[in-house]
Amino acid sequence: MTGFESDAADAEWRPVARTRTYELVIDRVEEQIVSGSLEVGDRLPAERDLAKMLGVSRAAVREAFRALEAQGVLRMNVGTGPDSGTTVAALPSEALTRLLRLHVALANFPVADVVRARIMLERESARHAATRARPDDLARLGELLDEMDSPDCDRARFNDLDTEFHVGIAEAGGNRLVADMTIAIRESMRRPLLAAFDDRGDDWYPIAEELRHDHRAIHQALRDGDADAAEKLTESHIRASYRHGWAQELP
Amino acid sequence: MTGFESDAADAEWRPVARTRTYELVIDRVEEQIVSGSLEVGDRLPAERDLAKMLGVSRAAVREAFRALEAQGVLRMNVGTGPDSGTTVAALPSEALTRLLRLHVALANFPVADVVRARIMLERESARHAATRARPDDLARLGELLDEMDSPDCDRARFNDLDTEFHVGIAEAGGNRLVADMTIAIRESMRRPLLAAFDDRGDDWYPIAEELRHDHRAIHQALRDGDADAAEKLTESHIRASYRHGWAQELP
Repeated sequence: MTGFESDAADAEWRPVARTRTYELVIDRVEEQIVSGSLEVGDRLPAERDLAKMLGVSRAAVREAFRALEAQGVLRMNVGTGPDSGTTVAALPSEALTRLLRLHVALANFPVADVVRARIMLERESARHAATRARPDDLARLGELLDEMDSPDCDRARFNDLDTEFHVGIAEAGGNRLVADMTIAIRESMRRPLLAAFDDRGDDWYPIAEELRHDHRAIHQALRDGDADAAEKLTESHIRASYRHGWAQELP
Repeated sequence: MTGFESDAADAEWRPVARTRTYELVIDRVEEQIVSGSLEVGDRLPAERDLAKMLGVSRAAVREAFRALEAQGVLRMNVGTGPDSGTTVAALPSEALTRLLRLHVALANFPVADVVRARIMLERESARHAATRARPDDLARLGELLDEMDSPDCDRARFNDLDTEFHVGIAEAGGNRLVADMTIAIRESMRRPLLAAFDDRGDDWYPIAEELRHDHRAIHQALRDGDADAAEKLTESHIRASYRHGWAQELP
């Protein structure tokens, strides 16, 4: 405009980054957590101080805090007591399960890939559960199977109990990280499995009978503390359930 | 205060729910996604309309949208074109990796549990990679190993290349869901592994030599298309790396 034409010709016009300021604030907070500088229970600087340190608006800091609170990463308490202010929270397992379920719903993974991931995780959980499940874990799993034997158990209820049975084994395995991943994947299968079984019409009855039989065999292997059997039975059961639901072998 | 004493005595004083309004809005949106009513690319109602339908303030809807945008679940575009408004985004893999990494950093899982999850995932990835890796995947993995042989490769760089090698195998395996989980777990180990190796002082040199040797053997098994060998070598390599880093066998 005022004689800078030659500079303007040299200027590099890079596209404006689409990342929003509050997302950059989120990145900074996460970096501190992953590097270990911020640990569970640590308090973050006040909004106005952090805004000044990062050179951003208070609104951007507030939005970042809200987004991280919604994910269970931060806890925001009002007031002036020792718990007031914004602290790092112990991200609940549920947050991971939620995101993984959303991820499976949105990412449109091929069902066969999800089933393969399920086999891998549940084999591992079954192995652990065979040696670590306590008597009350085993009793609770048995009650779920009894309920699945009831004549009033329709396929929606059957599917819920089936999910609970598999989740229960993952919990009994004692590796929280493996259990969290197993639960997320199994829960992401709840709806597609139910839809698949709804499509099977009356063929569902003999299928359900076979699934019940598989569950009893897995339960027995866990009671016997037989890790190899529990692992093998779990794999063949998941393969069978895929075959019945999708009318083809797992490729 | 004004003659309601008897009612007050009967009243149940439940604690005020801590869930914020915008978190309830997030729940509603996620329900629609998990149930399949909202799919990738679908447009959400305008802020003011959704606020009315849910009986909440526009600010609560806006905060929920921002939080979901930060997670990669929604995309918010301004303007009036066909892409304007708030649409459901294909949650990027990176969002899952990020959350899983945070989860591992915050949840304080025992390292042994994380290493066991890693073994499970990488065995599976190695199996797949042995049959599915393309020549350029194998060439790229080989380049990483060459770089790790260089005398200027210090332990931080070694650790980065090591991470890249394992991530590369997961990518080459072709099961995106398994790869995403593998990457997240391997990346969450980057810092603790580096810290462990820093603590080993000059003992690190023979350890690095052994790790290099393991990597070459795994790479060869992948080139040979030998899934069983790739799986076994991967497990023994991860166990050795735990033993060297933490000076004990994986319990």
